[in-house]
Amino acid sequence: MDDVAVITPRSNDFPRWYQDVIEKAELADNGPVRGSMVIRPYGYALWERMQADIDARIKAAGAVNAYFPLFIPESYLRREAEHVEGFSPELAVVTHGGGKELAEPVVVRPTSETVIGEYMAKWTQSYRDLPLLLNQWANVVRWELRPRLFLRTSEFLWQEGHTAHADEADAAAYARRIALEVYRDFMVSMLALPVFVGAKTRKERFAGATNTMTCEGMMGDGKALQMATSHELGQNFARAFDIDFLGADGGRHLAWTTSWGSSTRMIGGLIMAHGDDNGLRIPPALAPTQVIVLPVRDDEAVVAKAREITDALTAAGVRVSLDARPGLSFGRRVTDAELKGIPVRVEIGPRDLAAGNVTLARRDTGEKHPAPLTEVATRVPALLDDVQATIYAQALELREARTADVTSLADAVEAAGTGFARLPWRLVGEDGEARLAEESVTVRCLQTPDGELPSADTDDADLVCIVARAY
Amino acid sequence: MDDVAVITPRSNDFPRWYQDVIEKAELADNGPVRGSMVIRPYGYALWERMQADIDARIKAAGAVNAYFPLFIPESYLRREAEHVEGFSPELAVVTHGGGKELAEPVVVRPTSETVIGEYMAKWTQSYRDLPLLLNQWANVVRWELRPRLFLRTSEFLWQEGHTAHADEADAAAYARRIALEVYRDFMVSMLALPVFVGAKTRKERFAGATNTMTCEGMMGDGKALQMATSHELGQNFARAFDIDFLGADGGRHLAWTTSWGSSTRMIGGLIMAHGDDNGLRIPPALAPTQVIVLPVRDDEAVVAKAREITDALTAAGVRVSLDARPGLSFGRRVTDAELKGIPVRVEIGPRDLAAGNVTLARRDTGEKHPAPLTEVATRVPALLDDVQATIYAQALELREARTADVTSLADAVEAAGTGFARLPWRLVGEDGEARLAEESVTVRCLQTPDGELPSADTDDADLVCIVARAY
Repeated sequence: MDDVAVITPRSNDFPRWYQDVIEKAELADNGPVRGSMVIRPYGYALWERMQADIDARIKAAGAVNAYFPLFIPESYLRREAEHVEGFSPELAVVTHGGGKELAEPVVVRPTSETVIGEYMAKWTQSYRDLPLLLNQWANVVRWELRPRLFLRTSEFLWQEGHTAHADEADAAAYARRIALEVYRDFMVSMLALPVFVGAKTRKERFAGATNTMTCEGMMGDGKALQMATSHELGQNFARAFDIDFLGADGGRHLAWTTSWGSSTRMIGGLIMAHGDDNGLRIPPALAPTQVIVLPVRDDEAVVAKAREITDALTAAGVRVSLDARPGLSFGRRVTDAELKGIPVRVEIGPRDLAAGNVTLARRDTGEKHPAPLTEVATRVPALLDDVQATIYAQALELREARTADVTSLADAVEAAGTGFARLPWRLVGEDGEARLAEESVTVRCLQTPDGELPSADTDDADLVCIVARAY
Repeated sequence: MDDVAVITPRSNDFPRWYQDVIEKAELADNGPVRGSMVIRPYGYALWERMQADIDARIKAAGAVNAYFPLFIPESYLRREAEHVEGFSPELAVVTHGGGKELAEPVVVRPTSETVIGEYMAKWTQSYRDLPLLLNQWANVVRWELRPRLFLRTSEFLWQEGHTAHADEADAAAYARRIALEVYRDFMVSMLALPVFVGAKTRKERFAGATNTMTCEGMMGDGKALQMATSHELGQNFARAFDIDFLGADGGRHLAWTTSWGSSTRMIGGLIMAHGDDNGLRIPPALAPTQVIVLPVRDDEAVVAKAREITDALTAAGVRVSLDARPGLSFGRRVTDAELKGIPVRVEIGPRDLAAGNVTLARRDTGEKHPAPLTEVATRVPALLDDVQATIYAQALELREARTADVTSLADAVEAAGTGFARLPWRLVGEDGEARLAEESVTVRCLQTPDGELPSADTDDADLVCIVARAY
């Protein structure tokens, strides 16, 4: 067990607080090669819960999983001009294999549009083969000069979806569906995180995309984090990789492709959106452990009752565990549960036992109240729902308090000091975007006036933009 | 849809049959870089089912998942002498990252004992931190000169477990538990594959292990396939990486470690153990699709009834899908279901409908019989159990018919022409092992006279060995 010292307060030094939480909650360590990361069991348990939910949503959207190789011939990346330009500086290159220098060096995938494009071309003969809806769970490598655990690591884990469609409208509708029904809905319902869903500006698009949709979350320090993206790739990759098909009309046509991804970066977002000075706060829907049962003392009758409560909660479908570690004080076990962000603690001591009670403690608000032993298994599920709703409401409240409607670039920059600014896109434009960049402020996304994700028929003149400093 | 030609009969050319099945059942393709592999959706669905079951077994054995980096400093591999010698010829080496030559090249993990050892040392302070039971699901790279889809690919997917224990007995018991309760039980109950579980000879051990346990399956051509292994690593890696701890006695001690793995190679074993001249035969417990419902004709009433049956089977907990693809003849859809090894087909035509019947067709035996429409949902689950038991019984029967008890090396070599030979290990020994190798025959494992996995107290003089040609 590591030493659990107090963590740096958020208000003192947010980046340091972030590192402290990762270390003390045992989420991750720096890897041995610069920029790499070891995801520790508790961090990985969060990722497994994210994976399971996102995977189910992807399958519900009709895509199937497959697996493409880690190593990509360098020549593949060169086939799409913007793509190679975007990724070249970040590539890791294998020059030796099996004890010999390779005839052609291979790159470690930074993303898989190219290699998947090659196989889509092979598998797509006629319009009956479309849409082709693929996804993979994989590691990717992008060499990082300024790495940061979970947020920017040289290797990260993600899912990357890749689809091919017979026409542009179908591709656009699918990429949009993923942005909304997979990513936004996952973030709202599992991560308890409100996100602005919008389109990236031309400058901020994925390398090779004709449209990039994004989910942007606000972190506890008011900065933005891009949580997931979904791209329309037009016919750019279809052209580069000859993904064509025999249409119902008897002619050959180029397909329209999309790609979309979400990664272990979301764990960074989870930490920064909901964490407080005591550590993580994990929304119950996501939490690997929703409830921890803590006997106040190492007393036989108390521990036996605590075990009984644990069993009753398990039977009620709650993800619960008992922490009766000998040699660790009650206070230390509470601190550990708080650090790890366990949503609810059930605390029980000899006095509670005598009174037929336990204490229910909420991680979100810090509230504690007694509950009759006989009602624990029925009360806790409702309490977990309330914690989930409260964490979401708190994040929404923060975002609303810190999002300012402004009408000038100067005011936008000022607002970005503490949060987001929203203003008409026509007041910014590509020139304004460049000027904001000088202040380290970026356009996070473009939305309709109602705050919705724009579609092809949204008039550009009506768009509003969300600007912020970002991770 | 690819062209579904007849596949090469197994008896003509087993390796060619294997390739044909992989291609026609759409399991995998060769990747663009020599030795790499694209796992297509149906192949990946098999892997997902394997993963889910093995992951649950690993968790039941108390291990937790984590994730360690893909890139390992070259120097780590050099710390354990046998390990570096074993893996050096297979390494892929990254020399350039982020547009620059790296100061120290990094290797792409061929396995993770070294990097995990480094972190185990960091996380292990006292005996209270042990046992440390970790697992990861990951890709690994071993450069292959003679690649073969699923069996030997330069990159493959696997789980690798790594544990550290306070004493030798605990490490040995855990490695043994994994070999039996995770691997053997998975292979028997999910893959319907009887396996010989035994110890590897000194020559065949994992590089750096003091004991390697293996599960060996017999393929349809009588050759052996090593399906999974579990290793005791003694204190070799603990010494190389300083995994030590403060004991209850107040002194510092080196830990005892284990590692164990199973990979996408098992898909190759599944194909070769159960496949026949019509394609795959997937055991129902594993099958992503257990039942396929086939309307004989594109007739509205028939298709409606087929849909009703599909829904009823889904409600009964069966993994079922409807294949009513227009433009594909009934015969073609049957061929496709057979290629993919779907355990049971429910066929329904206008005549069946009129008679209130369907036809139930088993993939394992080829038997077909009518069943009343009203009983489909109750009969199919029992039928699936019977198919599972039959596939296992067939594999066991093959193995028993083709395993000969012999008493000389010459007879062992002859028996290995068609299957396995079993003989006293004292008649073979390290000299005999070298002579067998000249005939491309290897000792697959050592067992007790009762066919059990030997333990530390098994007398070497009592051991029997299983010898065979192997993949």
